[in-house]
Amino acid sequence: MRKDLLDLRTITTGEIQYLLDTAASFKEVLARPVKKVPTLRGKSVALLFFEASTRTRTSFEHAAKILSADTYNLAGSTSSVVKGESLKDTMLTLRAMEIDAFVIRHPQSGAAALAAKYVPECPVINAGDGTHEHPTQGLLDMMTISNAKGRIEGLTVAIVGDILHSRVARSNIWGLSKMGANVRLVGPKTLMPRDADQLPATVYTNLSAGLEGADVVNVLRIQLERMDAAYFPSIAEYSKLFGVSKAKLQIAAPDVTVLHPGPMNRGVEIDSALADDPEISVICDQVTNGVAIRMASLFWLMGARSA
Amino acid sequence: MRKDLLDLRTITTGEIQYLLDTAASFKEVLARPVKKVPTLRGKSVALLFFEASTRTRTSFEHAAKILSADTYNLAGSTSSVVKGESLKDTMLTLRAMEIDAFVIRHPQSGAAALAAKYVPECPVINAGDGTHEHPTQGLLDMMTISNAKGRIEGLTVAIVGDILHSRVARSNIWGLSKMGANVRLVGPKTLMPRDADQLPATVYTNLSAGLEGADVVNVLRIQLERMDAAYFPSIAEYSKLFGVSKAKLQIAAPDVTVLHPGPMNRGVEIDSALADDPEISVICDQVTNGVAIRMASLFWLMGARSA
Amino acid sequence: MRKDLLDLRTITTGEIQYLLDTAASFKEVLARPVKKVPTLRGKSVALLFFEASTRTRTSFEHAAKILSADTYNLAGSTSSVVKGESLKDTMLTLRAMEIDAFVIRHPQSGAAALAAKYVPECPVINAGDGTHEHPTQGLLDMMTISNAKGRIEGLTVAIVGDILHSRVARSNIWGLSKMGANVRLVGPKTLMPRDADQLPATVYTNLSAGLEGADVVNVLRIQLERMDAAYFPSIAEYSKLFGVSKAKLQIAAPDVTVLHPGPMNRGVEIDSALADDPEISVICDQVTNGVAIRMASLFWLMGARSA
Repeated sequence: MRKDLLDLRTITTGEIQYLLDTAASFKEVLARPVKKVPTLRGKSVALLFFEASTRTRTSFEHAAKILSADTYNLAGSTSSVVKGESLKDTMLTLRAMEIDAFVIRHPQSGAAALAAKYVPECPVINAGDGTHEHPTQGLLDMMTISNAKGRIEGLTVAIVGDILHSRVARSNIWGLSKMGANVRLVGPKTLMPRDADQLPATVYTNLSAGLEGADVVNVLRIQLERMDAAYFPSIAEYSKLFGVSKAKLQIAAPDVTVLHPGPMNRGVEIDSALADDPEISVICDQVTNGVAIRMASLFWLMGARSA
Repeated sequence: MRKDLLDLRTITTGEIQYLLDTAASFKEVLARPVKKVPTLRGKSVALLFFEASTRTRTSFEHAAKILSADTYNLAGSTSSVVKGESLKDTMLTLRAMEIDAFVIRHPQSGAAALAAKYVPECPVINAGDGTHEHPTQGLLDMMTISNAKGRIEGLTVAIVGDILHSRVARSNIWGLSKMGANVRLVGPKTLMPRDADQLPATVYTNLSAGLEGADVVNVLRIQLERMDAAYFPSIAEYSKLFGVSKAKLQIAAPDVTVLHPGPMNRGVEIDSALADDPEISVICDQVTNGVAIRMASLFWLMGARSA
Repeated sequence: MRKDLLDLRTITTGEIQYLLDTAASFKEVLARPVKKVPTLRGKSVALLFFEASTRTRTSFEHAAKILSADTYNLAGSTSSVVKGESLKDTMLTLRAMEIDAFVIRHPQSGAAALAAKYVPECPVINAGDGTHEHPTQGLLDMMTISNAKGRIEGLTVAIVGDILHSRVARSNIWGLSKMGANVRLVGPKTLMPRDADQLPATVYTNLSAGLEGADVVNVLRIQLERMDAAYFPSIAEYSKLFGVSKAKLQIAAPDVTVLHPGPMNRGVEIDSALADDPEISVICDQVTNGVAIRMASLFWLMGARSA
């Protein structure tokens, strides 16, 4: 039995399928007027967000509370960061308080795996570590694709944008390819990872070529705050060359489905009309499925274990 | 059935009376040793505070938790504001997470109404939007006046201070006038709204004239942080001309009652001895009634609906 | 019956023993798979942290939630501090909301006692006030020592470091001396309080002399952020003269036990290998006992009262 959910690179297809199936049944709970089940009553989850986040933190917090767990927000300026405590001591301390599980977002790649080592008997979920992985995002994207298309296997999925800095892209690449999708990485050369040829995906540096015949397009957020240097001439230039719109999607499959992990820069990487088109966009479904995937992840690591 | 509580300008007297009556019965719950009822169990409320606040946020959070709802704090630096997400996408995202209701404070007038449009099937409570309205404050003031005086109809209520920038004043004006009170707006000309003559209230730019015979005096906070320009010569000057004290209240009705929405600038707009005088001041009652009014508001929009 | 827990200077040995015994029974709850008892259901606790803190706030929050109380975080930038409200009005306001108990951390000595006066019928727990006291830390240190040694009476306990600025030291001195331990204060002259000769403890300005034969060594955090002036030449100098390591502990009792209140500056006041040695260090036990002591404190002031 796996202790942590740190990445989709090392997860098995059986585990992915278990999580997708469990999330599907939890999604029913989420649709009820009374969204509360006693599954994790008397359990506690620390939400350690070393980077600011609304949606991911709230999604995990909501997932935990629906399962009746208690949650602890440890974020930003109110956290131990002020006193300069090391990640190791933060983990040891919270574990000594008998906190049952940890959700961690951290600006450094590998931080969640490191944190997991410090608490050998306690589950850790990676909610995004640097440019490495964001596994629950990958899972919720797969759940959304599977719901929209009825399958993942055999689909052509184009991931468009800043692949280099995107943990969302990495988790998508590993998860989708394991489940049998053909993954394309689409973006300017400067935003492709150096190891792109070792990833189970095909690189396209031309948008039209990358979108041609695609069943699914996953548009990444241009993460301006993470860029250290000029990776492209200007926002306008990027938008012109790699921004996705209905017009540019003419070349894709006729029933193409569009995802975006949010928060969107409307008019930059994605056209606003496209984002809001319920025939094509499944962006809101992604958010709903995110809560269900996080419920499944918490249940998998915490509930199934103690049951 | 009303979906949102955005203002008291468009609310009916029947709705006001329903909220005051419901709050009265919830106030009993608040007085119990065990303050917990299962009314909103399995429901969730997002507290979206784009302006810092202790009392209003905690009051809503307490109201929600007593009703057994789960609450999510989305405020300041830990929120999506960091990543520059639009209000629209914040609302759509939280709604997609199956959050059941929203309490919003925002520095811009009209923000709560705008937010409410983005979630057409989901209740929004305005907890203060710019200089527009703060309806639960207006309701708790009415509840407090009604408890102190046995009625609202026919009372003369003087609202003293920075009327121009005060959302509290606006909600008081609409609510109190609907319930039959004679409302006076008292303050320097520079702090009167330009549309004051179109409001159901009489303007007084002299404190003594405005207080003469008043049954109730609602002293507003001087919101220094909201002023862009010099609306009055100095704090000392303001305090001398419009600061309310026991001496200045000699001209009011003998059993005059004083309210203040808090937080107080003691010694500026209100004398400290007056604020603490239990014979005249009902400032603590306002705070208690605030929790009851917020319980009633949440129940009205969330509980009565699903029952 | 005591209303507040503000310090260990004025607490009785009977009260200390009651809290240690109650904490021992609550520690069993903390070891259960389902950590939840209904003791404080329908009660609310405000956590007023005017100084940033992870461990203490989370410890109290966890303690309260295990006892089924609701908690309200009022800290830093999201609190009323922004609007400049006085401590008095913050307390009166929260009390008027029917909040049942307060946990307060404040940078000024005496702030918790002042706060307690403003809410005469409502419990206040001091979670650290300036350089004055941090009574639940003192209690959890005593619980940890008692568990490790089987007793407190007759033990020699050396408190090492910045005694002058340490509220942890003050609470340890009063608590341990009351329970019959011989307390030593060990540190450079510049970091000894001026009133050290009036405390129930012996001063040592040489580390070896202070550690000689000690049964317990409580190593304080060097609180760099609290120092206004140069109390010692450099961190390296401090570490060389007063940093505690296994080598320097050779002179202590053979079964010496080491505590640290955290967060640690590893390599400064305490050697990293020593901190992690399970034969000597009980630092993780301190954290676990901290939750139990805070459960006992909340129960003592809130639960036993209403039962």
